[in-house]
Amino acid sequence: MRRIGIVDTTFSRVNMGSIAIDELKSTGTGYIIERSTVPGVKDLPVACKKMMEEKDCDIVMALGMPGPKDIDKVCAHEASTGLIAVQIKTNKHIIEVFVHMDEAKDEKELAWLTERRVREHAVNTYDLLFRPERLVKQAGTGQRQGFEDTGAVDGGNTGGH
Amino acid sequence: MRRIGIVDTTFSRVNMGSIAIDELKSTGTGYIIERSTVPGVKDLPVACKKMMEEKDCDIVMALGMPGPKDIDKVCAHEASTGLIAVQIKTNKHIIEVFVHMDEAKDEKELAWLTERRVREHAVNTYDLLFRPERLVKQAGTGQRQGFEDTGAVDGGNTGGH
Amino acid sequence: MRRIGIVDTTFSRVNMGSIAIDELKSTGTGYIIERSTVPGVKDLPVACKKMMEEKDCDIVMALGMPGPKDIDKVCAHEASTGLIAVQIKTNKHIIEVFVHMDEAKDEKELAWLTERRVREHAVNTYDLLFRPERLVKQAGTGQRQGFEDTGAVDGGNTGGH
Amino acid sequence: MRRIGIVDTTFSRVNMGSIAIDELKSTGTGYIIERSTVPGVKDLPVACKKMMEEKDCDIVMALGMPGPKDIDKVCAHEASTGLIAVQIKTNKHIIEVFVHMDEAKDEKELAWLTERRVREHAVNTYDLLFRPERLVKQAGTGQRQGFEDTGAVDGGNTGGH
Amino acid sequence: MRRIGIVDTTFSRVNMGSIAIDELKSTGTGYIIERSTVPGVKDLPVACKKMMEEKDCDIVMALGMPGPKDIDKVCAHEASTGLIAVQIKTNKHIIEVFVHMDEAKDEKELAWLTERRVREHAVNTYDLLFRPERLVKQAGTGQRQGFEDTGAVDGGNTGGH
Repeated sequence: MRRIGIVDTTFSRVNMGSIAIDELKSTGTGYIIERSTVPGVKDLPVACKKMMEEKDCDIVMALGMPGPKDIDKVCAHEASTGLIAVQIKTNKHIIEVFVHMDEAKDEKELAWLTERRVREHAVNTYDLLFRPERLVKQAGTGQRQGFEDTGAVDGGNTGGH
Repeated sequence: MRRIGIVDTTFSRVNMGSIAIDELKSTGTGYIIERSTVPGVKDLPVACKKMMEEKDCDIVMALGMPGPKDIDKVCAHEASTGLIAVQIKTNKHIIEVFVHMDEAKDEKELAWLTERRVREHAVNTYDLLFRPERLVKQAGTGQRQGFEDTGAVDGGNTGGH
Repeated sequence: MRRIGIVDTTFSRVNMGSIAIDELKSTGTGYIIERSTVPGVKDLPVACKKMMEEKDCDIVMALGMPGPKDIDKVCAHEASTGLIAVQIKTNKHIIEVFVHMDEAKDEKELAWLTERRVREHAVNTYDLLFRPERLVKQAGTGQRQGFEDTGAVDGGNTGGH
Repeated sequence: MRRIGIVDTTFSRVNMGSIAIDELKSTGTGYIIERSTVPGVKDLPVACKKMMEEKDCDIVMALGMPGPKDIDKVCAHEASTGLIAVQIKTNKHIIEVFVHMDEAKDEKELAWLTERRVREHAVNTYDLLFRPERLVKQAGTGQRQGFEDTGAVDGGNTGGH
Repeated sequence: MRRIGIVDTTFSRVNMGSIAIDELKSTGTGYIIERSTVPGVKDLPVACKKMMEEKDCDIVMALGMPGPKDIDKVCAHEASTGLIAVQIKTNKHIIEVFVHMDEAKDEKELAWLTERRVREHAVNTYDLLFRPERLVKQAGTGQRQGFEDTGAVDGGNTGGH
């Protein structure tokens, strides 16, 4: 039995953790979920590290919704830097799912975008843990989470593998 | 008995450490407080680490008031990066409470905003240590510390948990 | 037998991993290739570290295609910082091959540029592992990967080695 | 007997190390001074770490004068990030005293500002090592080093400690 | 016998490594030189660490010539951050010698500036290793590498050492 950690924030305006758990359940089995919630994105790195080391998780989803101001962008950058540091220290993946509030034109789109991005990254999380070969098959295909995929610019005619 | 560290600065124009201690005392019991003060926000990371490792604190509040200039923003960013690094090294939370001087329109609002933000984060600190399930219940509800909460954009109708 | 890791992304619009493998095969022998694919560039650092420590790779190519927006530039910076951290921790080189989408004027040029840059850096990867003296001979010669080399400004008349 | 490290640069236009030593001597006793000088601010982090680990210093002053250009600001940021990293690794304070050349309107003010800032931070250094309770008493009082203090915005009427 | 590492890049348009070696030879004896070359500045940190740990170098010169574009500035920043991290991990100095292509007005000045800066930093490297007291004597004298020194603003009349 593997363990997937889900960490989200009270700052977010959408319950990202619950969406992630819902999508994981639709995607497959073989894992137990551990969940925690922290105030904001800058609290995510240590919370994810605790998931790895105190809850024995094999992978963690770090879910956050940075605000639209310059200072919020800086906070998101600090959080992302910390999340990468945790991964390097633990040799385990953290799938960062951040939705910046100014990516959406209104609250309705924000809710829609957040749900789509969380769901698509929940599948990536499952794939990294249980079926990594699915990701290799999608290499270079312009996948996006939330908005539409962009596709490949030159489909497969250059490689030799 | 748990230990909560409180570290603030002489640079700040409000006695943030005393407000934090006052709010913690109103919130609950079961902990001892350790306090120290450093010159500025860039001195906070090591002071928090010493709280963890030399004073045996379980969690620390890092309280600071960065100035309004570009160089102050850079200092705050360096401090935040360091605070995240300390958390990752110790597997313990540091609740960063920074009030940027240019968030408030005058000195009166600055005092008001600082007190509110410190008090709300003191409760977050208590919750992380003693009742983390309270934070999970607030996931995705748009909590803010200081100014008004923004609320959820799509209250609870998407999740499955 | 040495091991070369190839890690690319599903976000990229060109199958960079397959091009890298194709070029390595034309360049020389004496190595085994390990390949994995992750969602985006921020997932590359830990994936490269796992290549080093779990797949016993001696060197890794980290292949990614950051998008054109400000947030994409920040992601690329975070990824690069993490890739350098992994190298420092492992004492092994990671050749970062990033093609920023706004480096090319259209999709055709993007495909062309990506293929050239990946191929030229595949040779650098091979050289670092098997024939580092080739790189010393190119010191200060203005090598570029993808677009044209710029050349030396003052060819060889100042040194004493 | 405690040890205080003093590290400054040849890039600075004021002999900051000598001012720091002079002020420390006026402030108190009970310590030995170790001094070294490096080319620029980016050389300070490792020099401070060597002071800690090879000269057994308990605290270090890192003295520098970054230039006025954009690239100088980036260098100062890199240096500060490194100084925080050293503190976190050693659990010892480094008091960073940087005077940016463009903080002063002319050479005369630059010399005046540098001397004041170095002297005030020398006292902070002494306080952190020998009388930390003095800093707690100054918490939230708007202390500045060099230019005038700004003072508290709401003197003492909110705290409960 | 001490060991000095010299690492430069194929991206640079001047053979910086050969100039450094030439200047070191004119400056003094008592050391062996180890040299390697990497593609670009982001490859320097691990190459310098390998010099320290695999070639037993006591100090390393990291020589690079970042390009003039925004992305090149970011690469230089990432490289510098990594070089500082390596120094902190090894307790040994790395003298970073970067010449930004846009510091010079034409190719002729670029060659001149590069040669001067490399030579002056080669002497700093030698001094740090063999005669650090020379640097202390230059503290606060406004030394520059390449362009003219700026000098002290207030020559020696404030210090007490």
